[in-house]
Amino acid sequence: MLNVGIIGASGYAGEELMDILLNHPEVRISYLAAKLQENQPITDLFPRFKKRISLICDKEAHLKEVCLKCDLVFLALPHTVSMGLAPGLLSAGKKVIDLSADYRLKDVSLYEAFYRAKHKDKAHIKEAIYGLPELYRNRITSAKLVANPGCYPTVSLLALAPLLAFGLVDPESIIIDAKSGATGAGRKAAMEFFFSEINEDFRAYKVNTHQHMPEINQELSLLADKKIRVAFVPHLLPVNRGILASIYARKSRKGAKPQGRNLVDVYKKFYKNEPFVRIKEEGRFPKLKDVQHTNFCDIGIQDDKDKIIVIACIDNLLKGASGQAVQNMNIMCDFPENTALS
Amino acid sequence: MLNVGIIGASGYAGEELMDILLNHPEVRISYLAAKLQENQPITDLFPRFKKRISLICDKEAHLKEVCLKCDLVFLALPHTVSMGLAPGLLSAGKKVIDLSADYRLKDVSLYEAFYRAKHKDKAHIKEAIYGLPELYRNRITSAKLVANPGCYPTVSLLALAPLLAFGLVDPESIIIDAKSGATGAGRKAAMEFFFSEINEDFRAYKVNTHQHMPEINQELSLLADKKIRVAFVPHLLPVNRGILASIYARKSRKGAKPQGRNLVDVYKKFYKNEPFVRIKEEGRFPKLKDVQHTNFCDIGIQDDKDKIIVIACIDNLLKGASGQAVQNMNIMCDFPENTALS
Amino acid sequence: MLNVGIIGASGYAGEELMDILLNHPEVRISYLAAKLQENQPITDLFPRFKKRISLICDKEAHLKEVCLKCDLVFLALPHTVSMGLAPGLLSAGKKVIDLSADYRLKDVSLYEAFYRAKHKDKAHIKEAIYGLPELYRNRITSAKLVANPGCYPTVSLLALAPLLAFGLVDPESIIIDAKSGATGAGRKAAMEFFFSEINEDFRAYKVNTHQHMPEINQELSLLADKKIRVAFVPHLLPVNRGILASIYARKSRKGAKPQGRNLVDVYKKFYKNEPFVRIKEEGRFPKLKDVQHTNFCDIGIQDDKDKIIVIACIDNLLKGASGQAVQNMNIMCDFPENTALS
Amino acid sequence: MLNVGIIGASGYAGEELMDILLNHPEVRISYLAAKLQENQPITDLFPRFKKRISLICDKEAHLKEVCLKCDLVFLALPHTVSMGLAPGLLSAGKKVIDLSADYRLKDVSLYEAFYRAKHKDKAHIKEAIYGLPELYRNRITSAKLVANPGCYPTVSLLALAPLLAFGLVDPESIIIDAKSGATGAGRKAAMEFFFSEINEDFRAYKVNTHQHMPEINQELSLLADKKIRVAFVPHLLPVNRGILASIYARKSRKGAKPQGRNLVDVYKKFYKNEPFVRIKEEGRFPKLKDVQHTNFCDIGIQDDKDKIIVIACIDNLLKGASGQAVQNMNIMCDFPENTALS
Repeated sequence: MLNVGIIGASGYAGEELMDILLNHPEVRISYLAAKLQENQPITDLFPRFKKRISLICDKEAHLKEVCLKCDLVFLALPHTVSMGLAPGLLSAGKKVIDLSADYRLKDVSLYEAFYRAKHKDKAHIKEAIYGLPELYRNRITSAKLVANPGCYPTVSLLALAPLLAFGLVDPESIIIDAKSGATGAGRKAAMEFFFSEINEDFRAYKVNTHQHMPEINQELSLLADKKIRVAFVPHLLPVNRGILASIYARKSRKGAKPQGRNLVDVYKKFYKNEPFVRIKEEGRFPKLKDVQHTNFCDIGIQDDKDKIIVIACIDNLLKGASGQAVQNMNIMCDFPENTALS
Repeated sequence: MLNVGIIGASGYAGEELMDILLNHPEVRISYLAAKLQENQPITDLFPRFKKRISLICDKEAHLKEVCLKCDLVFLALPHTVSMGLAPGLLSAGKKVIDLSADYRLKDVSLYEAFYRAKHKDKAHIKEAIYGLPELYRNRITSAKLVANPGCYPTVSLLALAPLLAFGLVDPESIIIDAKSGATGAGRKAAMEFFFSEINEDFRAYKVNTHQHMPEINQELSLLADKKIRVAFVPHLLPVNRGILASIYARKSRKGAKPQGRNLVDVYKKFYKNEPFVRIKEEGRFPKLKDVQHTNFCDIGIQDDKDKIIVIACIDNLLKGASGQAVQNMNIMCDFPENTALS
Repeated sequence: MLNVGIIGASGYAGEELMDILLNHPEVRISYLAAKLQENQPITDLFPRFKKRISLICDKEAHLKEVCLKCDLVFLALPHTVSMGLAPGLLSAGKKVIDLSADYRLKDVSLYEAFYRAKHKDKAHIKEAIYGLPELYRNRITSAKLVANPGCYPTVSLLALAPLLAFGLVDPESIIIDAKSGATGAGRKAAMEFFFSEINEDFRAYKVNTHQHMPEINQELSLLADKKIRVAFVPHLLPVNRGILASIYARKSRKGAKPQGRNLVDVYKKFYKNEPFVRIKEEGRFPKLKDVQHTNFCDIGIQDDKDKIIVIACIDNLLKGASGQAVQNMNIMCDFPENTALS
Repeated sequence: MLNVGIIGASGYAGEELMDILLNHPEVRISYLAAKLQENQPITDLFPRFKKRISLICDKEAHLKEVCLKCDLVFLALPHTVSMGLAPGLLSAGKKVIDLSADYRLKDVSLYEAFYRAKHKDKAHIKEAIYGLPELYRNRITSAKLVANPGCYPTVSLLALAPLLAFGLVDPESIIIDAKSGATGAGRKAAMEFFFSEINEDFRAYKVNTHQHMPEINQELSLLADKKIRVAFVPHLLPVNRGILASIYARKSRKGAKPQGRNLVDVYKKFYKNEPFVRIKEEGRFPKLKDVQHTNFCDIGIQDDKDKIIVIACIDNLLKGASGQAVQNMNIMCDFPENTALS
């Protein structure tokens, strides 16, 4: 039995982690903390977990206690907070899966520019493994610190990886038009996320300035082995969960599409052994309902003369956050990769 | 041309007032104030009003300026704030329509218990006219200070008035099961009103303790000429606007239903000359869509052996707030009562 | 391994049954049928089940094949269709759980009046067990044919059972004001269930004429040992799933509330050993989010002078349909009652 | 007083037309028809219009009666139906505004390919004026038959017109990623538009095959004076009304941007005298709430190195259908262009 802790249990990702881990046969949730007025039963925060868990949630994380009680810790915290806790956990020999952005960007200056804060733990950035199993499964196996990918990057990278791996598109031309449900913003108090402001509305936000853009650029550049800068326009959907990204790119002239293969086959082959990626047949495209409450990423592809259109979607709280975090834990701890995830 | 001011222009009621008044041929909006960081064009707050109005909204109300610029002032403020402004406006001879609860309850002790604040302007409570035109039109004509009714009371009173006026139900037995859209709570920062908390959810709240209950009791008691205490259970609907109340009452034994009349006819007669009350035919009931973006109150009635069931609905921002406020203004200023309201 | 079939796999209840049963360690889904144009892979209908199941769904149920492949059959069919299939399955020795209303009402004349059809299998009505485990667990253990309760009756009966068992309320006075998400109506083509007709709307429907009313009356009458006729007003909520019922009743004079006990304690004791009923503490009430995607029924109670107010909720597709059906299967087959349900 | 008729009064566009025209001081609605089981009061279909109109809606259009009663007729009919009615009306000297696609495409073969029907009135295609006032106001003035533009084309053309007029973008590179509320599909019975199928979901549909694509291509080609073929991916939003289009294009090398001007200024100048187009300041983008229930088109522009991003939105039922139709009527009849529209 693996003892795990969740720090940041009161947010959407923390709530979802609990929901998954309570069904995980190899795991016991042994510690919870969140920013609260006072220590309180976690079921006071989430009555829906009554009769499933009866732990007290600490109003702040006590490092010693966490280390005493846990083998592995999920940090489901706002950006800039995780890096204050990870070093202590790592030096105590604990495995850490950080759902924030603190260890995702290898270039500290980009982190500091987009998250508007000094990085306080540069030492661990290099050894942190970017937790996208489809690209980095081998390294995750032995990771001590996993930087769990952002939700937009997860869907964007899975949608684009085959195209860049085979050089099928012009890297200058990539446009990511992404739409996310409201839980993507986290459970934080800002008037703009009020029900009547979002319900029946739809808007673009942070047009080409979103903090997930450098993360996407970093990973695409590694895939393409050249510097890539995408156009990235996120939009806010009036739904609770799910991200759908519509991605456009101009075909590369020199693209080496494996002979005799159409694009759907290229994708199917690329993701052949992946348990959580599903490729749609020609002319079919995924929708949020296909992936909500699952850890799947569904991808549809259209070959349109000079352009390629890829439409992909995930549940932002699962494959885009907590589901992927558990997938990473399963890999790190040698559990079957889909345990508690299907 | 009547010059009007809106104090509290940034809330839902204030926004809706502007929308109505910008279409009112007899009115010019000449002053706006709201709790802001700094004075700013109202179209910065509400881009949807661009090309319709170009006023600067003051970050707080300056009494002198208000009095200089306005003949009539709408107070679209949170409870307990209006009573700090009304006295100054009244003593300067301005007409005031207060959309808050500050002048609705005749019994100060009830106000202080339910709104948890000392009342600072008891002097004006008595002369304030309760602005439900269907019951108090005559008095509104000459009112200086109108206490615009709450949204739940408006729909409840219109639904119950004929039954109590004719003594058709047992006053002890009245149950009001009301459901309101999220704008009913106002534009205020509380985590519980976040999109993902309300969307796809439904809940009862303030069961039998809601601050609109004494207002309903006060007016029903006046109608019945005896002390009435209803059971009142409000619920929060995942829609932007609209209230639907399902009301249950046991038939009175001594009820004097005008001979040869069914209940639908009783209601039709009672509201015969009312421009904004519509009675459904036997077996038909209203829905939110019938009244959204209108100033109507729609009412359906079922005669069920020993019980009477009344289902009524309004748009909480119009007949339940700003529409009714303009209806009151029209009455006070001798404009046709439905000007700008249909 | 129990081989189960689902007939009516294309509806909301059938879809949900699959989702549950695919996680059930003791069960294999071995047959699917639904009203389709042609036989087709079930994942064509529900892409979300890709990589989890790959069965072909028959365009209509073939009795012989069903009997060959299944030990137990779920009928997730529209009312009046199940009774055409159940007799054949039963006479072949199969266990049957019928999610329709065909075997719920003991009084055939009520069935025929409310469902507007002749009953074609009166023979089995008597032996059908009403599948509400909290009331009939013992009989379900050995049942061959379970009539799975309706969604409104499930939540209403669980909310009222303790009050009637102890005679705490006047049976004449019961009012059930219920609100259901749109999946409650099933996946059927009627203009009134279109997105833009329901979204942002709210309405009462079938006021005191809903077909679940006789089912509620039947079971309450058995509990109270006297004929009961409730007032029942269902409403349509603009959410996908969940039912919340607000129930009102006048206290009985002769009510024998177990001494020294408040109502919350009465409920807690009544449901002490129930795995899927949760009682809220004094002053707390449940909301849809607490029970969505779970098999729980959550209940809050208010003791209000002469009245009792009970607010209860369930997920209409789980405790109100497919979850309860699996709970019944678990009981009939001697699996732990909560297998695959938490 | 202009007497107008609405044929197709039961759809969303027809309903919205009534709502607008009932507030139009120069117009009397004198005839209504829709596909119904029987003639019936229009308020039976739309209880929300009670006390505002009391016309009987014919169950089908009678040409003679229409001609007798109306000076101008709105055809708010499904595609392929309008062309059966327009010729009769035109030959009787009536003005016709057709909200369907029947007279929009100058190339009959494209119409027949995309709408899968033979065109039955080729004679009038040529004289029909494409009713986008911002581009064709002069011709609309004297038009007998106006082909009211589609919703997606309206927002796309207004967003792109300045760029193409000045040759600022490479016409090959245009990508229109559009998102529409559910009323865009009309009030028609298809399972895919059911509440629970759309609510909480989001999907792309008709990827690069939507029937509005040739309409967009036709008008853009006229603007650019060369054949243009856009990539057009529409998506279905879980909201009632509104379209937001995010448009991407590569900058043209030879683009003649008027010297010393940034893009926002280019747009502002281009639309200087337009009553219903509003340009956002640099760095600001519009959202659905800004335009819902208005006839405005709001446009935000980003100049992004080698690309231009334009985000534009309209209310699909107003500027995208009925509002624009009334705007066209105002122009044709020499009423102030914004009468009843603000």
